[in-house]
Amino acid sequence: MPHSDLLNSDLPRARDVETVALLADAARRIALPLFRSPALATFNKREADFDPVTEADRGVEKEMRAILAARHPLDGVFGEEFGRSEGSTGREWILDPIDGTRAFISGLPTWGVLIGLHDQGVPVIGALDQPFTGERFIGVVDGAQRHCSWQRGEAHQALTVRPCEKLADATLMCTTPALFTDPAQRAAYDAVERSVRLVRYGADCYQYAMLAAGQVDLVIEAGLSAYDIQPLVPIIEAAGGIVTDWQGNPRPWDGAVIAACSPSIHAQALALLGQA
Amino acid sequence: MPHSDLLNSDLPRARDVETVALLADAARRIALPLFRSPALATFNKREADFDPVTEADRGVEKEMRAILAARHPLDGVFGEEFGRSEGSTGREWILDPIDGTRAFISGLPTWGVLIGLHDQGVPVIGALDQPFTGERFIGVVDGAQRHCSWQRGEAHQALTVRPCEKLADATLMCTTPALFTDPAQRAAYDAVERSVRLVRYGADCYQYAMLAAGQVDLVIEAGLSAYDIQPLVPIIEAAGGIVTDWQGNPRPWDGAVIAACSPSIHAQALALLGQA
Repeated sequence: MPHSDLLNSDLPRARDVETVALLADAARRIALPLFRSPALATFNKREADFDPVTEADRGVEKEMRAILAARHPLDGVFGEEFGRSEGSTGREWILDPIDGTRAFISGLPTWGVLIGLHDQGVPVIGALDQPFTGERFIGVVDGAQRHCSWQRGEAHQALTVRPCEKLADATLMCTTPALFTDPAQRAAYDAVERSVRLVRYGADCYQYAMLAAGQVDLVIEAGLSAYDIQPLVPIIEAAGGIVTDWQGNPRPWDGAVIAACSPSIHAQALALLGQA
Repeated sequence: MPHSDLLNSDLPRARDVETVALLADAARRIALPLFRSPALATFNKREADFDPVTEADRGVEKEMRAILAARHPLDGVFGEEFGRSEGSTGREWILDPIDGTRAFISGLPTWGVLIGLHDQGVPVIGALDQPFTGERFIGVVDGAQRHCSWQRGEAHQALTVRPCEKLADATLMCTTPALFTDPAQRAAYDAVERSVRLVRYGADCYQYAMLAAGQVDLVIEAGLSAYDIQPLVPIIEAAGGIVTDWQGNPRPWDGAVIAACSPSIHAQALALLGQA
């Protein structure tokens, strides 16, 4: 697929970026035919409520693990469906084969295939592939080098966050306020919601890509797993954004997350989250 | 654009369906270059809060009105941005140039161009065009004839709702619970939310298309304007779904709406809405 390789030679960590493209291409080939397919099999992962997983989630991760085993046999792999396989290189691939399975099984184009690479504990590459819209977002953070790009077929462009400085001018996103199961957390989130210009729900991983693309200014969520957020960290950071936990610690591993387009928006939101 | 005309000859009301395709093609040409464009100008329609309108909304409706004036000069036109022009034929075109302007200005692919036709007060044709994903949903209800289809480039297929019978198995959608400004309405909606298997937010007009496509089972909203819902009625009905107000009256003009995949899901949801 030529579009995957368009930018590879310009990027730092070219061989790893090529691996990301191979993984995303494979994921697309498996996931797209199952999207909106009446034949799609869905299972429930939890007894207590509904936590869906599909054959697409499992099939995509299995194929991505096979590619990684061939190309990077000594690297670790951590995926949503099949857990952690330790490596010996200090490098770990973090995979969410279908982030937004609930969107996937509802026909909505906001799910994504997430692929991240940590090197010595630092998130250095992240990718979000949306097979239905044909979009791929890739972020690379390599020392001082930062690169974030969007690709769709033959089209591609560099991404940067937009320069929003006041919370009252900001667009906030969150997949659903139901993420905030702790009442104090919900109250804190609600305080931010009341302070922004526009709130949009429902976009799963795609909302972090829209932050990187300069379309929204702030994403606040909680209860995330590592594979939900690690692959997005380099996309956000390489586009000039900030991602921390609700105490302001950068690059949270999982849990409660705030991602912002500017230090100013981040500080204003963090202050409101801290007050609650 | 050949894909627009693929199915036209098979449909009842062929000349009107051709008009819909011309309108949607024109809308796509104007709206798509403005989507995610840094040059997009956004204005606020209300003093009290943020009700955005863009040059895309205005430009699309202006162009659609010009096409209608040329092809159907005696028909009435009712559009979101430029109001109502009475006709003399008993036919009225109902236009929402960009439904989901908030999604449009946030970079999300769930907005749509809505085009409806009423004939002697009856909604007979409806279309939702999503220019970024390249999808077009068209519903025609003509006496006993019903036709609902999805088109994307050269691909096309007939749509039907899915056979879900129990609320506990259903997927519910709603753009945002903030639509329910009346506390009693919100309590009623929340009761339905607690009774379903899965809830998804944020999809604007696109969620009604997903109902018609058999991807979700129930959409509940309130505070809709006529141009938000009228063009969707034939899509829902032609796919085998039901759309009423919260009292069960079919084909509501505006306000509070419930759209369901089956009489059974509709009745169960309506009972809960009525109890609150």
